Amino acid sequence: MAKIIIVGASGTIGRAVAALLENQNEVVHVGNRQGDFTVDISSKAAIETLFNNIGPFDALVSTAGASRFGKVDEAGDEDFLVSINNKLMGQVNLVRTAYPQVSAGGSITLTSGLLGRDPGPGTAPTAMVNAGLEGFVRAAALDLGRGVRINVVSPVFVTETAVQMGLGPAGTMSAAETARAYQTSIAGDMTGQVLDVRDYGKIEQNRQ
Amino acid sequence: MAKIIIVGASGTIGRAVAALLENQNEVVHVGNRQGDFTVDISSKAAIETLFNNIGPFDALVSTAGASRFGKVDEAGDEDFLVSINNKLMGQVNLVRTAYPQVSAGGSITLTSGLLGRDPGPGTAPTAMVNAGLEGFVRAAALDLGRGVRINVVSPVFVTETAVQMGLGPAGTMSAAETARAYQTSIAGDMTGQVLDVRDYGKIEQNRQ
Repeated sequence: MAKIIIVGASGTIGRAVAALLENQNEVVHVGNRQGDFTVDISSKAAIETLFNNIGPFDALVSTAGASRFGKVDEAGDEDFLVSINNKLMGQVNLVRTAYPQVSAGGSITLTSGLLGRDPGPGTAPTAMVNAGLEGFVRAAALDLGRGVRINVVSPVFVTETAVQMGLGPAGTMSAAETARAYQTSIAGDMTGQVLDVRDYGKIEQNRQ
Repeated sequence: MAKIIIVGASGTIGRAVAALLENQNEVVHVGNRQGDFTVDISSKAAIETLFNNIGPFDALVSTAGASRFGKVDEAGDEDFLVSINNKLMGQVNLVRTAYPQVSAGGSITLTSGLLGRDPGPGTAPTAMVNAGLEGFVRAAALDLGRGVRINVVSPVFVTETAVQMGLGPAGTMSAAETARAYQTSIAGDMTGQVLDVRDYGKIEQNRQ
């Protein structure tokens, strides 16, 4: 039974990853405001406290990280800053802090997003940090020892979130199918890879 | 005769880009410490002053931006912070600030680097910001109006710099050949693209 930490466990994707994993593993739920532990990933000190409290583990999954939208000529300094400090450096700092406590052969799985490779208008701050995370993971994989692997899952917009926001499901993927990419990252032997969720589940088609 | 601003004009690549362009264009040389104008690109206020002073122009090239190296478990907070504030957000802020002054049909060309797509060990902070710049440019291209284009050149290690550091030339490309990618970005009609310098020049082979 592996000890798996999910940071972002109370989010839509995090809950689905937990549901998929917790029959066969000890899952530690970490949320922003609820869970076995809480953490603000924009604070490196808070991340250090978190891993001191949790101790050694076998796999870390992060489905956490806020980022902002906005056209490049309209997004404010704050939109870029929050995206960098939260989704990008928050997850980078999870890796830097967690690494000494990951067991040999263990894994770390972060979350980027389709916009990093295939953006739409008005997405520059998010596209930037998603792509940055993918570059970080490719490089970090070459530095990690003890057989520790690191990958990043690139989700599309999640169906449940789209429906909750009153949007149509076209182009989205259910959280349960999205979660399969995380499971593959943990159970597989790849490292330094971007796992595109479209390889692990079905995109909802436009039903009009 | 187009007015072309080169930020980083006193660097090895910047000088080669200037040499290639200045016969047929009005080139404005901007450096960190020397040139027609100087700027510290880690300061958004300094960038705003720069473009207020220069006024309208036709093309912006940035070959500027410091970033750090280091293994993911050894690089310090400062290594990530400097890379983000200088090479990543420095160039992003050049775009955000310069855009209102670019003429219709003009262009902006930034600089990332091969490590963003093809990293080596001990390169995480630089790989992260290079990839982030490429994600930013792909998204920003969708937001710019007036026919303004934006691309990013991904150079390999420049031969002159390698020789200056006492390293062999294998795997490097001369600054003059590297500069061709910037010329293509300015003269061409592509936008939102990563221009890999290996498509525009010859990589030095190992001569042993």
